[in-house]
Amino acid sequence: MSVYDKLSEIGVSLPPVTPSVALFLPFVRTGNLIFVSGHIARRNGEPWVGRLGAQIATAEGQAAARAIAIELLAALHAATSDLNSITRIVKLLVLVNSAPTFTEPHQVANGASALLNEVFGDRGPHARTAIGVAQLPLGACVEIELIAEVV
Amino acid sequence: MSVYDKLSEIGVSLPPVTPSVALFLPFVRTGNLIFVSGHIARRNGEPWVGRLGAQIATAEGQAAARAIAIELLAALHAATSDLNSITRIVKLLVLVNSAPTFTEPHQVANGASALLNEVFGDRGPHARTAIGVAQLPLGACVEIELIAEVV
Amino acid sequence: MSVYDKLSEIGVSLPPVTPSVALFLPFVRTGNLIFVSGHIARRNGEPWVGRLGAQIATAEGQAAARAIAIELLAALHAATSDLNSITRIVKLLVLVNSAPTFTEPHQVANGASALLNEVFGDRGPHARTAIGVAQLPLGACVEIELIAEVV
Repeated sequence: MSVYDKLSEIGVSLPPVTPSVALFLPFVRTGNLIFVSGHIARRNGEPWVGRLGAQIATAEGQAAARAIAIELLAALHAATSDLNSITRIVKLLVLVNSAPTFTEPHQVANGASALLNEVFGDRGPHARTAIGVAQLPLGACVEIELIAEVV
Repeated sequence: MSVYDKLSEIGVSLPPVTPSVALFLPFVRTGNLIFVSGHIARRNGEPWVGRLGAQIATAEGQAAARAIAIELLAALHAATSDLNSITRIVKLLVLVNSAPTFTEPHQVANGASALLNEVFGDRGPHARTAIGVAQLPLGACVEIELIAEVV
Repeated sequence: MSVYDKLSEIGVSLPPVTPSVALFLPFVRTGNLIFVSGHIARRNGEPWVGRLGAQIATAEGQAAARAIAIELLAALHAATSDLNSITRIVKLLVLVNSAPTFTEPHQVANGASALLNEVFGDRGPHARTAIGVAQLPLGACVEIELIAEVV
């Protein structure tokens, strides 16, 4: 099944990739790998701010991680022009803005992993590292970087 | 010398890789690289819980890092069926659950690096990044992800 | 323009790469990628100590990140013998020693990104992840790891 058909089926539309005004790029391809920059969680176009274990509960963190996964898909679409050419999601690094007591960054990360697995089928399952960090850009609750393999 | 002979010589036996019930995989191979997921420290099968600079001293953190290195070896064995086919340990990312005052994550990381160097000989020395983080999955004291090169 | 001419033009001289007495290497090459270990900020040869959002302001953090970028260039020079053979800076992971209230790790990271972009021209722009962490080796204010592509 085409990745785009699957996205339609589950009601996900890809946002445009904002032209970068920054000193770095949303992604770089080298050989058969695409390194996608860390993307922070956004809601209604604004940073999704807060800390897990404080203002943000695990379920909301999962929703934020899922929202980032959609941004990462948009970046991969921009990188490849065809998401069906992605042969494997290789690895996620999931960074969770965490109070010192919050020990479930892996549960938060599942919000992104589940979407990628649903969209990419057997090309979706990936290696992953999830950690709790002291802070994130603009106070975002979650940030995720991704490596994908492409033909 | 075979990696397995070396493991026997130093009295290390590899644990089974737990079949993943998670949304991610213990490792993914792409080209000649194997990306191994972040593995948390475990002791007697349970998460090795605590924070460096608080409940956990540096020496105990090193022991936890060494224990993770054994788990990473088990994952690499599962990935390759033959650890002798590993041509290089490429990089470790070592994440240490740290009190704000703990400035020795590199010393903790040495517990893993030393074992990998001992087991793999001149294929062992690797690039490395060690940092102190706010929290880790299940409250573990250390988590390590690894990249290896294989023929 | 040669990377070395550009470095001269902007008055940057590369420090020697300290022979590693550690259990890890400053870099590892695999295929066309060079993984450079996390390098901490140094000033006058000593760790550049402090925390953003506390003792260190964003502008000083940017200077520290720029200083690390010079160390990373020295490592890449040692890895390649010719920086002109670098075809792309692929990715930075920028780790900022952060008070829980400091939400500008991306601004700190710009200190490194700007130098790399200046030195490498159109081979400079890279993917990037910037985060705030609880602590860093030796209390350093910033640590950066880098992946580069080489012919």
